[in-house]
Amino acid sequence: MLDFVRGAPDPTIAAVASASRALRDVSSLFYERGWAFGTSGNYSVVLRPRPLRLLVTASGRDKRRLSDEDFVLVDESGIALDPAAPRPSAETLLHVVLAQRGGVGAVLHVHTIWNTLLSDLHAARGAVRIEGYEMLKGLAGIRTHDTALDVPIFENTQDIPALAAQVQAHIDRVGDGPPHAFLIRRHGLYTWGADLAEARRHVEILEFLFEVVGRGAEQSRAAPPHVYATSAEAR
Amino acid sequence: MLDFVRGAPDPTIAAVASASRALRDVSSLFYERGWAFGTSGNYSVVLRPRPLRLLVTASGRDKRRLSDEDFVLVDESGIALDPAAPRPSAETLLHVVLAQRGGVGAVLHVHTIWNTLLSDLHAARGAVRIEGYEMLKGLAGIRTHDTALDVPIFENTQDIPALAAQVQAHIDRVGDGPPHAFLIRRHGLYTWGADLAEARRHVEILEFLFEVVGRGAEQSRAAPPHVYATSAEAR
Amino acid sequence: MLDFVRGAPDPTIAAVASASRALRDVSSLFYERGWAFGTSGNYSVVLRPRPLRLLVTASGRDKRRLSDEDFVLVDESGIALDPAAPRPSAETLLHVVLAQRGGVGAVLHVHTIWNTLLSDLHAARGAVRIEGYEMLKGLAGIRTHDTALDVPIFENTQDIPALAAQVQAHIDRVGDGPPHAFLIRRHGLYTWGADLAEARRHVEILEFLFEVVGRGAEQSRAAPPHVYATSAEAR
Amino acid sequence: MLDFVRGAPDPTIAAVASASRALRDVSSLFYERGWAFGTSGNYSVVLRPRPLRLLVTASGRDKRRLSDEDFVLVDESGIALDPAAPRPSAETLLHVVLAQRGGVGAVLHVHTIWNTLLSDLHAARGAVRIEGYEMLKGLAGIRTHDTALDVPIFENTQDIPALAAQVQAHIDRVGDGPPHAFLIRRHGLYTWGADLAEARRHVEILEFLFEVVGRGAEQSRAAPPHVYATSAEAR
Repeated sequence: MLDFVRGAPDPTIAAVASASRALRDVSSLFYERGWAFGTSGNYSVVLRPRPLRLLVTASGRDKRRLSDEDFVLVDESGIALDPAAPRPSAETLLHVVLAQRGGVGAVLHVHTIWNTLLSDLHAARGAVRIEGYEMLKGLAGIRTHDTALDVPIFENTQDIPALAAQVQAHIDRVGDGPPHAFLIRRHGLYTWGADLAEARRHVEILEFLFEVVGRGAEQSRAAPPHVYATSAEAR
Repeated sequence: MLDFVRGAPDPTIAAVASASRALRDVSSLFYERGWAFGTSGNYSVVLRPRPLRLLVTASGRDKRRLSDEDFVLVDESGIALDPAAPRPSAETLLHVVLAQRGGVGAVLHVHTIWNTLLSDLHAARGAVRIEGYEMLKGLAGIRTHDTALDVPIFENTQDIPALAAQVQAHIDRVGDGPPHAFLIRRHGLYTWGADLAEARRHVEILEFLFEVVGRGAEQSRAAPPHVYATSAEAR
Repeated sequence: MLDFVRGAPDPTIAAVASASRALRDVSSLFYERGWAFGTSGNYSVVLRPRPLRLLVTASGRDKRRLSDEDFVLVDESGIALDPAAPRPSAETLLHVVLAQRGGVGAVLHVHTIWNTLLSDLHAARGAVRIEGYEMLKGLAGIRTHDTALDVPIFENTQDIPALAAQVQAHIDRVGDGPPHAFLIRRHGLYTWGADLAEARRHVEILEFLFEVVGRGAEQSRAAPPHVYATSAEAR
Repeated sequence: MLDFVRGAPDPTIAAVASASRALRDVSSLFYERGWAFGTSGNYSVVLRPRPLRLLVTASGRDKRRLSDEDFVLVDESGIALDPAAPRPSAETLLHVVLAQRGGVGAVLHVHTIWNTLLSDLHAARGAVRIEGYEMLKGLAGIRTHDTALDVPIFENTQDIPALAAQVQAHIDRVGDGPPHAFLIRRHGLYTWGADLAEARRHVEILEFLFEVVGRGAEQSRAAPPHVYATSAEAR
């Protein structure tokens, strides 16, 4: 892949190498957290917006320790620029749709316990509502905890072009509005940011909040506060 | 053990050393995840299919940091080729049964919180049903989330030859069918793959899905979505 | 920032560098534990008590790997001494209020799953009651498990000066009494100590106890002990 | 401390240094697992059985990165042999009682979420019953999963000599019987082994089993298996 890039005016080899290095770091971090088990997850960085040049993880790679060979440079159709490159992730079209949105520099997709659970439990409502938490301020553009965020949920499908069209329609509908992320039911989270650091921050914030929402639902059925606190009373 | 191998035409010392290195890496990884506490777990790699030469962990070793001395090369009866080798894992016969199945290059057995719990809770049904999750596609040969996987559960026993015979009978019955794994009740998971990377991927995928199934059952008893979400309503 | 300090009589460059090093270590540790996701959390060390010189994390920094450039030296009003320094954390005033209390050498603020959940579930009572645990002795001045600790909860707000005034009033009211910490509802924990090691110890002790209180409430609704224990009975 | 030992015939400096190294390794491991937050936990290794020479952690040390200076050599009364040594752990007498039992080479005490919870929930029965799990075989002398282990629970107290006497009486009563461990209510676990590796194995096995018992009780109240499994039915 680096050979291919050598002849191109841009993105430069250095830009590709730098994006690859940053993605490998995030990939190992997410793997360690248990957010990318079993080759799940895929990640991309925008190297040039128009025409799109997107560096995306190749299909089916172990996310524990990626190497330069585990990335593919694709165009605005999700096609590898180098015919000899490995096959890009099966969900590359979703990355492309998001990457073509203004101000998006990186897209991250992870499968986690809590995003899988909530994407299913809240599917009937069409979104996971997250409301009133200080951590919401970790999402770009949110300035107060007094915010209600709806993370939309799409039904899962193996028809990625169809899903990409749904996501595109959703993006068109909300315009320049607040969406930071969406869930695919029983599948996982897509989130993005102006750059890779922001996209990673969005993953961390949302995963934190999903776990809070999920455990909070369990807690609300648990014993009311303090019944358990005094051992004399608890017996 | 390396001395023993020296005279043999194959597997070569290099093949044994390479398999040992790969197994040690997986072993440390699983230990860190809490999947191989207290010398539990055992792992093997097929070095030659017929007659079988299987490199398997020795009995009772701490899985945190294995060394070359913690592996034994066994034959198709599970007997160490080198009489001076350490005793192979007590469950070596299960590895041998699986390793003789076509296309199996590695077998991994782990005791985890969630596989222990589900192997018991679902025992009456004889299998853990996992259905409708994208992560299922991480198992070899599964192409869509719209799949129902039954991971069979065997009763636990200290009679390993008897258990091996049951597993053999089960494999014969399903033929070249889908089984990727089985559980032993209140004991743990066996899974395998064409090579060690695939076997490790299967462990990660299944452990992820076991946790999703287990926590999902708890969530389905928790408060319905959004009761907890708005602080005004929650009070 | 180091350049600025160079001309000052005290704190010395060495003192700033030493505090920065210690804070970076704690920061990475907390990040790894999942206690400072998405640039959340802020940390400070008192370098001189009167007039106050406080080294505090700059606003919005990734807590995984802080560098010297991610800290700001502020005065007793929370204003950076160096006009060219990065903007101090938005909650610096809370650090300042606490740091001016006698015997406080470091202040740590973290957002965690359990402190977020308990700060909300126990909000109506105004405090999380922790009672009867040996781990309470890890808090400065507590000599027996037979202690009832109330960790006060303040409502969350984006008006930090108002919140700082409430905290100040609370501190004045309890005088030299026991407070080791407080919670902000759906936001996180503030705790402090005579030095950074003690403040870190307080974070660890309180997070442990929050999780025990939270999971304890869930357990108290679970099956009574031993219903599950015997497999024959459980079926 | 090393200076003191220098003049003694045994244990040698090398034996002390070796025990210290092994204990520091276990200590970091447990700290990383969240089993020794906030200076909790204490660990010892028997260097000579009769008269007892026990290397035990000093009081109140951070267990993340112990150094040689964080250990004390004590005699059969729990008194430091070197008057200039740091104060041994407040619970040293419990270590001494256990270390004087035949075949005990190391004693480990940890405070964890699950041992704290179960030590309280099962207190009325006087023991945590663990039954039917393969992991029980990780405890010395247990040869089958078909075993019922009772881990006794003592009430917590700050009167360590009184608690040590209770433990001594318990040990005398069970003779050479099965006890591998005991719990102190709302406090933590004590376990031991023929050497440090066995004692660490016992910690790992018991913590695994405590979590299985605790989560199992929650699961037994959750939805029956498979209610959640099919998305069509779950809606």
